[in-house]
Amino acid sequence: MTWDDERVARAALTAVVEPGDTAMAGRLKDLTAQDLWYHLLADTDERWHERATKTDVDQMIARAEKATLRFLIPTDEEWPLRLHDLSWIERSGLGGAPIGLWVRGPARLQEASERSVAIVGCRAATSYGQDVAMEMAHHLARGHRDGTGRHVIVSGGAFGIDVAAHRGALSANETTIGVLACGLDVLYPKGNVPVLERIAQTGALVSEISPGRHPTRPGFLARNRLIAALTTGTVIVEAGWRSGAINTVSWAHELGRVVMAVPGPVTSSRSTGTNKLIRDGEAILVRDAEDVRGIVGELAPEPERPDGHSLPTDVLDATELAVHEALPAHGSSGLDELSASAGVPVAQCSAALTVLEQLGLAACCLDGTWSVSIAGDGRRG
Amino acid sequence: MTWDDERVARAALTAVVEPGDTAMAGRLKDLTAQDLWYHLLADTDERWHERATKTDVDQMIARAEKATLRFLIPTDEEWPLRLHDLSWIERSGLGGAPIGLWVRGPARLQEASERSVAIVGCRAATSYGQDVAMEMAHHLARGHRDGTGRHVIVSGGAFGIDVAAHRGALSANETTIGVLACGLDVLYPKGNVPVLERIAQTGALVSEISPGRHPTRPGFLARNRLIAALTTGTVIVEAGWRSGAINTVSWAHELGRVVMAVPGPVTSSRSTGTNKLIRDGEAILVRDAEDVRGIVGELAPEPERPDGHSLPTDVLDATELAVHEALPAHGSSGLDELSASAGVPVAQCSAALTVLEQLGLAACCLDGTWSVSIAGDGRRG
Repeated sequence: MTWDDERVARAALTAVVEPGDTAMAGRLKDLTAQDLWYHLLADTDERWHERATKTDVDQMIARAEKATLRFLIPTDEEWPLRLHDLSWIERSGLGGAPIGLWVRGPARLQEASERSVAIVGCRAATSYGQDVAMEMAHHLARGHRDGTGRHVIVSGGAFGIDVAAHRGALSANETTIGVLACGLDVLYPKGNVPVLERIAQTGALVSEISPGRHPTRPGFLARNRLIAALTTGTVIVEAGWRSGAINTVSWAHELGRVVMAVPGPVTSSRSTGTNKLIRDGEAILVRDAEDVRGIVGELAPEPERPDGHSLPTDVLDATELAVHEALPAHGSSGLDELSASAGVPVAQCSAALTVLEQLGLAACCLDGTWSVSIAGDGRRG
Repeated sequence: MTWDDERVARAALTAVVEPGDTAMAGRLKDLTAQDLWYHLLADTDERWHERATKTDVDQMIARAEKATLRFLIPTDEEWPLRLHDLSWIERSGLGGAPIGLWVRGPARLQEASERSVAIVGCRAATSYGQDVAMEMAHHLARGHRDGTGRHVIVSGGAFGIDVAAHRGALSANETTIGVLACGLDVLYPKGNVPVLERIAQTGALVSEISPGRHPTRPGFLARNRLIAALTTGTVIVEAGWRSGAINTVSWAHELGRVVMAVPGPVTSSRSTGTNKLIRDGEAILVRDAEDVRGIVGELAPEPERPDGHSLPTDVLDATELAVHEALPAHGSSGLDELSASAGVPVAQCSAALTVLEQLGLAACCLDGTWSVSIAGDGRRG
């Protein structure tokens, strides 16, 4: 990524323009970002003139680099093609494609977006909703044992359903993307910072506003359009009828994305939105990851990892994975030791080691002890 | 109802033929019941010959009369026209219109059937399912305050959802119909006998098998076709995928009746059937009585009561009803006394009495105390 003039100008714009400003998005269809930025600086009648003149672009970029953010613009290869669908969409004065995207984390957005599903819902979720969100996200992220059917879980990083969905994907050691309404160095909400940091390590945090900026209410609504646009479909797990998650549904409908909802007790206020969406034919009822896959498809081809490789451990079952994890990083261990360490009975441990050996994930040493395969340690760091 | 030859012969047939025997139903399209009964008695090759010869028809009719049962046949005015839809329907060897219907209770079946909704579900229901069934049945039975939108609740008298639905209708003092798979003098299940007896007092119990006969497994399945056929639509409140309630759905579909289902937690085994029906587009999601009305229609005109009159108390709100209930059956009460007895503040009690007086449901005596109107006590016994 090079900070050429266009990129710098677009970054500057994300520091002053409110997200989802359709007027600005519209002008960028005819003007270069440099020209637009020049107008904002030069013309006192411009809506964002005041903010523009007060913005120290160099300092902002330095701040972003310090926070290890990158800044994507539509001409980048990593720019998610799905976002182009936003170009002509406007709802209640919000819309348009983002001017640019601040990103933190190893996930490549275009690839991740192609096979992604949004899982969203209300903040004040019940344990039912959180359990379903986590389980669904885990299985959607993890995919089938043959490595197919994996999806990137996209959500908004909020309390309740959002963070449960992120956690589910993280528990499967898979990519999840948090689309935030704040600058990526001032994470919000504070209570979710530990999870958001984990997302940034293995997946990505994404925002269309510049580092240092705090979320606003319209900003959350604008953020919802990104969640809908980035994904193949949106699942609402639990939401009252006035929940922000329902706003995401409107965007998904407008964008022609499939909308799915998890039913819940008709006696639960947190399921009024989801049940109504299903009843009104605005969402398809989904019960689990399998239902979601049946609707958004199995999404071939198999995605690339952030590091460009798929993991051989993806095909292991829980027992095999436990034994694999028990293998020492250096040196070797005997069968009894591995059995104890993995918490797996000796017979099953032995069977698992045979599978691991066939996969090149374990090697039997001359003294009968086991080590990680010399062919390459498939385990993640 | 006169016990002419045709009626006696049909009654005899219900004592020997298994319910839903399509062969017998088919032959009754061409033969009179007397002729068919004669064949069963005379021809040793007839499937039901043995049973027929052992049947004491006079004794069976005496038994029915002792239990205050009536026996309807298709030429009766009270015969539900909807049952004709069964004539050409067969599923897994069961089907056809019933040969006759044993009935106990004041409800007139044809009228009740025209504005009826079935509410069914599994026996091992959760408290969620039972609450929803009872609430839905109550409000569907009770209708709107202007007296419209009332529906007769039909169910199978079983434990769980069925009995909750019956109870809901009874709690609204409205007609409910129990369609049973047993003879109406040997009620099943025993634990529901108190409720079934109450149904017989104000609504009706219905069965296509003769008094004294006990339920069989095919009998339950055949019974389900009657529930589906008698009603404008069927609501499944809670059911696993292998529940008998799902069998009722198949009949409803085959009969072109609307099928509705209440969603539930995707984590509840008792909602797997209902959620799947909704997901597969085989049932419409309903949350409450209002949703059901929106689907089966408001069903004008207003039905007649078993006694042929609608109740003037139907238009009262909860406060007015409470005050009306507090009026003594004999003599009169003062305002303070009524206020205390009804649990309604004096001012509201006074206002309610004015309404009741205008409706002719209360009368102010010369000494300022209040009595039930001399024009007629609208309260039920």
